[in-house]
Amino acid sequence: MSAALDAAGTTLAAEAARFASFGWMRGTSGNLSLVLGRDPLRLAVTASGLDKGSLTAADVTVVDETGAAVAGPDAGPGRKPSAEAAFHARIARVSGAGAVVHVHTVAAVVAGHRWPDGVVLRDLEMLKGIGAAPAGAAVTVPVIGNSQDMAELGDRWEAARDEGVPAVVVAGHGLYAWGADALRARHHTEIVQWLLEAAVALA
Amino acid sequence: MSAALDAAGTTLAAEAARFASFGWMRGTSGNLSLVLGRDPLRLAVTASGLDKGSLTAADVTVVDETGAAVAGPDAGPGRKPSAEAAFHARIARVSGAGAVVHVHTVAAVVAGHRWPDGVVLRDLEMLKGIGAAPAGAAVTVPVIGNSQDMAELGDRWEAARDEGVPAVVVAGHGLYAWGADALRARHHTEIVQWLLEAAVALA
Amino acid sequence: MSAALDAAGTTLAAEAARFASFGWMRGTSGNLSLVLGRDPLRLAVTASGLDKGSLTAADVTVVDETGAAVAGPDAGPGRKPSAEAAFHARIARVSGAGAVVHVHTVAAVVAGHRWPDGVVLRDLEMLKGIGAAPAGAAVTVPVIGNSQDMAELGDRWEAARDEGVPAVVVAGHGLYAWGADALRARHHTEIVQWLLEAAVALA
Amino acid sequence: MSAALDAAGTTLAAEAARFASFGWMRGTSGNLSLVLGRDPLRLAVTASGLDKGSLTAADVTVVDETGAAVAGPDAGPGRKPSAEAAFHARIARVSGAGAVVHVHTVAAVVAGHRWPDGVVLRDLEMLKGIGAAPAGAAVTVPVIGNSQDMAELGDRWEAARDEGVPAVVVAGHGLYAWGADALRARHHTEIVQWLLEAAVALA
Repeated sequence: MSAALDAAGTTLAAEAARFASFGWMRGTSGNLSLVLGRDPLRLAVTASGLDKGSLTAADVTVVDETGAAVAGPDAGPGRKPSAEAAFHARIARVSGAGAVVHVHTVAAVVAGHRWPDGVVLRDLEMLKGIGAAPAGAAVTVPVIGNSQDMAELGDRWEAARDEGVPAVVVAGHGLYAWGADALRARHHTEIVQWLLEAAVALA
Repeated sequence: MSAALDAAGTTLAAEAARFASFGWMRGTSGNLSLVLGRDPLRLAVTASGLDKGSLTAADVTVVDETGAAVAGPDAGPGRKPSAEAAFHARIARVSGAGAVVHVHTVAAVVAGHRWPDGVVLRDLEMLKGIGAAPAGAAVTVPVIGNSQDMAELGDRWEAARDEGVPAVVVAGHGLYAWGADALRARHHTEIVQWLLEAAVALA
Repeated sequence: MSAALDAAGTTLAAEAARFASFGWMRGTSGNLSLVLGRDPLRLAVTASGLDKGSLTAADVTVVDETGAAVAGPDAGPGRKPSAEAAFHARIARVSGAGAVVHVHTVAAVVAGHRWPDGVVLRDLEMLKGIGAAPAGAAVTVPVIGNSQDMAELGDRWEAARDEGVPAVVVAGHGLYAWGADALRARHHTEIVQWLLEAAVALA
Repeated sequence: MSAALDAAGTTLAAEAARFASFGWMRGTSGNLSLVLGRDPLRLAVTASGLDKGSLTAADVTVVDETGAAVAGPDAGPGRKPSAEAAFHARIARVSGAGAVVHVHTVAAVVAGHRWPDGVVLRDLEMLKGIGAAPAGAAVTVPVIGNSQDMAELGDRWEAARDEGVPAVVVAGHGLYAWGADALRARHHTEIVQWLLEAAVALA
């Protein structure tokens, strides 16, 4: 798994630098993950407490489906996984996503505050970017209450989840988005963030 | 046409990277085109589904006046043209423009929502940048309803069109702007986007 | 004057690229000048119609106190001066400034629209950056009506002028700021723009 | 102390360039400091009047606990310390911080104006980044009146201070934030600035 982990670390560092350049990962906020294997579930997740604009390939660690660091020679350089790794693993397991992005944006916090029951979007071409209809039907990006308990956060997400929407707003916290791979997770992140900015500006 | 297509691809990749750096092409949104010839009409258009900040010269394809990919040795590397290529071709044919830019900006969506009958601009020096009078007369940037049918979109634009205005806002979608060549299309895009931002801020 | 003009062109290109990177010179908007000599008055001014983010040292021309291009071997490469060169020359002559910056910002247009009699600023530490008191006394950045007649624009500015304020907002147009040299003109531009953004946000 | 001062200058120049790139140090505004020693207290502080986006390692000077420049061979290249150096020294002495950042942001000025008795924050995950609880308890970022007298500014801060909050808003002026070292001061600056932006957007 060493080469795979190194490749995952390289990808995650590049993606994190991109989102940091947008101002979406201020301080050491946010985290990203890539699925390394599914049987058993293993994810490479960015290490906790580091500046997301200057990660290196080594700044990842491997977690299992509970978000716990995996020991042993395949585990990565032993950095501490983000506390939110368990929620990343939950999203990857339930949705089948291969990559998960979590960023802290002001627009996500404003949208979550304004629409605690979900952000209803309609008649926006950009919806096509998450596989939804650009006109007619409404799409709701779920909003869930924040929690420091990742199991609780995961339960809230599963209860609120719309299978067609690859994102969730955590109130007072930020945005999670995901996709089949890092590139599609990136696109979903950018698109949902744009939709949240538009929703706030249109309200 | 190979060298011409390569040159067009190089230009379009550079222009797309510029607009992406402004945050106007999030996800894989937006597309750009250059007229390669007029008899018959042929356009180089950016390929669909790619990140607009990292296109290469090869990430273009050739379409005819209906937006359909042109087969044969001169057709480019066979990537799929954007679904909106037909509207690019319509704009190029009707207006005589040599380059068309389409970006997804929040300001365009807000302006289109607020002024569904057109964005009326007046007494702004920046209007000179699209060839209009900076004082006295009003200029209206048309706003048209969105559609997935490019012929319908084109008909709406022709019905709403002001020949002196090289841009149109598509409601719930974004901005199209054009010019004689890539540089002038760039300038018109930047200027109309600035005017939309100003109109929203002044309202 | 050749070496001096080349040095001026290099400086103006760098300053213009800086302001363009902030989004303050969209399209081909705005222009900058440096005083080359005072007896008679000669300014190097950025050429008209070019993208301000990618000027070269050669993209300047020399004008006299009326803003007219100066002919002859010392005149620069013969590009067309900006139409606003005459207002640059007027500011340089009357204020004694060695450098003048003109940018098109949305905040300047919003402030000019909201406060047509001048933007009153008070109790802001940033005022020290233009040599004003940070507390107690009010400072007014003049706002003048726009005109295509540079003599009229200059008369309006002289009538509204506060000698202690190195900037003026032109309504529906943008911001002019100046200083003893290019660096101080840059700082005054950035500071007044910040003050306008703050004034709009505080209103 | 020469090598230590050179290292401090290098660090401060890099940190200042980062904040300048965010638009938080327009003109020559803001300043940064690093503690060099505590017995007696000595700080390296950025020199006054320079552009914060292009400092070099030499653009620092050494001050004592009163903010006065320290003479002698260990004093640095003799540039003038920022007038606010005394407040940096006060913060370092009282809080034990090893690094202090001062930036001029519009959000800090807006928040200080809107909440002159302190910015109350609650139920925001980002609070964890300054060591506070993300839910339940409120955290108040103190707001103090501006002053040109650094002793008065220091007294106001000590009177308003919450030991758990590594930041203070100076009304009509900007934001101070600090941490054990330059990296943690950076993170606290970014996090508090994000919290101020969110508070303004949520209000």
